[in-house]
Amino acid sequence: MEDEVHTLRILVASDLHLGFMEKDEIRRHDSFNTFDEICALASKHQVDLVLLGGDIFHENKPSRATLVRTIEILRRYCLNDRPVEFQVVSDQTVNFPNIFGHVNYEDPHYNVGLPVFTIHGNHDDPAGVDNLSAIDILSACNLVNYFGKTILGGSGVGQITLHPILLRKGSTKVALYGLGNIRDERLNRMFQTPHAVQWIRPENQEGCPTSDWFNIFVLHQNRVKTNPKNAINEHFLARFLDLVVWGHEHECLIDPQEVSGMGFHLTQPGSSIATSLTDGEAKPKHVLLIEIKGSQYRPTKIPLQTVRPFEFADVSLMDEPDLDPNDQVAVTDYLGKVVQDLIARAPGKAAGCPELMIPLVRLRVDYTGFTTINPQRFGQKFVGKVANPHDILLLTRASRRRQLADG
Amino acid sequence: MEDEVHTLRILVASDLHLGFMEKDEIRRHDSFNTFDEICALASKHQVDLVLLGGDIFHENKPSRATLVRTIEILRRYCLNDRPVEFQVVSDQTVNFPNIFGHVNYEDPHYNVGLPVFTIHGNHDDPAGVDNLSAIDILSACNLVNYFGKTILGGSGVGQITLHPILLRKGSTKVALYGLGNIRDERLNRMFQTPHAVQWIRPENQEGCPTSDWFNIFVLHQNRVKTNPKNAINEHFLARFLDLVVWGHEHECLIDPQEVSGMGFHLTQPGSSIATSLTDGEAKPKHVLLIEIKGSQYRPTKIPLQTVRPFEFADVSLMDEPDLDPNDQVAVTDYLGKVVQDLIARAPGKAAGCPELMIPLVRLRVDYTGFTTINPQRFGQKFVGKVANPHDILLLTRASRRRQLADG
Ligand SMILES: [Mn+2]
Ligand SMILES: [Mn+2]
Ligand SMILES: [Mn+2]
Ligand SMILES: [Mn+2]
Repeated sequence: MEDEVHTLRILVASDLHLGFMEKDEIRRHDSFNTFDEICALASKHQVDLVLLGGDIFHENKPSRATLVRTIEILRRYCLNDRPVEFQVVSDQTVNFPNIFGHVNYEDPHYNVGLPVFTIHGNHDDPAGVDNLSAIDILSACNLVNYFGKTILGGSGVGQITLHPILLRKGSTKVALYGLGNIRDERLNRMFQTPHAVQWIRPENQEGCPTSDWFNIFVLHQNRVKTNPKNAINEHFLARFLDLVVWGHEHECLIDPQEVSGMGFHLTQPGSSIATSLTDGEAKPKHVLLIEIKGSQYRPTKIPLQTVRPFEFADVSLMDEPDLDPNDQVAVTDYLGKVVQDLIARAPGKAAGCPELMIPLVRLRVDYTGFTTINPQRFGQKFVGKVANPHDILLLTRASRRRQLADG
Repeated sequence: MEDEVHTLRILVASDLHLGFMEKDEIRRHDSFNTFDEICALASKHQVDLVLLGGDIFHENKPSRATLVRTIEILRRYCLNDRPVEFQVVSDQTVNFPNIFGHVNYEDPHYNVGLPVFTIHGNHDDPAGVDNLSAIDILSACNLVNYFGKTILGGSGVGQITLHPILLRKGSTKVALYGLGNIRDERLNRMFQTPHAVQWIRPENQEGCPTSDWFNIFVLHQNRVKTNPKNAINEHFLARFLDLVVWGHEHECLIDPQEVSGMGFHLTQPGSSIATSLTDGEAKPKHVLLIEIKGSQYRPTKIPLQTVRPFEFADVSLMDEPDLDPNDQVAVTDYLGKVVQDLIARAPGKAAGCPELMIPLVRLRVDYTGFTTINPQRFGQKFVGKVANPHDILLLTRASRRRQLADG
């Protein structure tokens, strides 16, 4: 097809949190199963590259087992004889400032057929005297292309210079900007300081004006909600951008939304595994296929099949007229029935998984006016029926109902 | 050369202790510098493979920085277009029981030109529910061939079955046995229990009798000295062996010595870095080039040039007739002069290193009859002149003179 050679196909995912709950008998494989599925989807849809939005690893120092399993999955899917049909035309030593200094598929000693590009998140951010992230280990193995690591200047607000990775496939030209997680407060201040954040644009060339480039930006920060100081406002970003990929926020809001007045769209892939049992994480998880041709792109969301079913419900005991606040047995029975209903509602089997996957269940219970319940004891009868028996119930009082999710 | 195609060339080293002293400003690069030198020697001498005797890593959970530097060095030297000219003819899924199950240079997606074979030591032994060693990370990256990991049977003494890696180069046939470190006491008991250690011999075949194989065994244990319970006796090993490579012992006794009554020779490479400041570690460090043709081999020891100079001396204050036991100043002056002499004796520059390498100095002082000295204070005047100013002096009394080295 004529079109194919000019269409750059990207699979976008974020917040894999590999190794999450690795000591849990039931859930230890969840993060890897879904990462495997994501890689398989990338192969199946024959994308040119995978783009990840940070928090690849759940722990800043992943265990040996997590490193080994991650490497195994990457090796299985990324190394193959499939030709890579796009080029990196920017200065690769600037984009990938490790000792090798090139995109992984150009290394003559590896057959990379599926290149992965990633920034770091707050869970796998660089640390120590060498400023190394766990992702640097994957990069040293030539299994990912790690970009967007900034060295913040010493004094004052500091400065960040964003050099895009320039990708070409046929006539399509994509400038990929990335910024690994830094403290929200700091980045906030920088965005509000003139010239503190420098966006380097591709040179204007004859036959290839700067305006021809399709501009993607991937970042990993809190998105502004209530407290604007500890989050980043979409309106801080550059107007020349076409598409923003926002990592760190675990709720899957993957359909690109137009950001008013900015002229770009924003996709929030969400995490590929629920790390906090909140309402937002109970929504179906997806990854996004992006097909870019010239200045146009087509987004296609793809549901993930291996994600452990997760049912969430809010219950306010006060609203149940038949419940006696002092009758603990009745309250426990009532909540038990709600949990049973949620279990029944959960898909019995994740489509992508061979074995039965018992669901996660979370009941947020406003018990204002009622005596408290012991969540541990309550969960005992659901052992073997839900994946998180010990924290099914989240007891709240109306006043402290708002829970903060950890991204 | 006709001979070349039948000669298997192996570079043997052990106890690299990568990451040793990685937080020390002066010594942090030492382990990597020498590992780099060893790999460069392997390239220079065009060996077929490198054989390591365990304790690749100093820490059971190496830091990110150590993992990254190790991977970088392996990647730089092991991946190249040089053809590998020997074959592994044993069942590779038995030899390398990871999910890939083959020797690294046969992986179609990597250009491995210098295969490394290694067992684990006690510093990098497998642990956790998955029984993974840090070496499994290198193996997952396809940068080393990790063998000799045993799963000990549950009850009783247990059983070990040693399956050799069978290597062929032309008419030369080498059976390479490996046993990663296990507790000395346990192995001791097993060696003294009939049939607990099973040595699997290559099959007797027409034109290739079992007796044609040259048999190497690499292990990582204490060698019997004073306490035979916590060490392994060379006479426990199988008599059909031709050469034993003994890791864990840090003193370099690399010239193969005949073991009386056993019919094999034994080489103890020693560590490539001094991790304890003992007499044995102060001896020159070497690696061993082994060239095997048929049933014959030629060992050639190669001195390491990047090892930090280390001068060791024993002093007994009692033996100095002019020293007044109560004159602290005189004693300190006297010891200071001995240290000065040791510094003067150290080679000013390690031949392989561009920068000046200040030496390690250790003075074992028997201070029987004298008042004690503060080693910290004593070392202050040698800051910048020796690499270990804070522990130059090891104060002993005659009765506790024998120091145990940590392998
Ligand atoms: Mn995050
Ligand atoms: Mn996250
Ligand atoms: Mn050891
Ligand atoms: Mn050792």
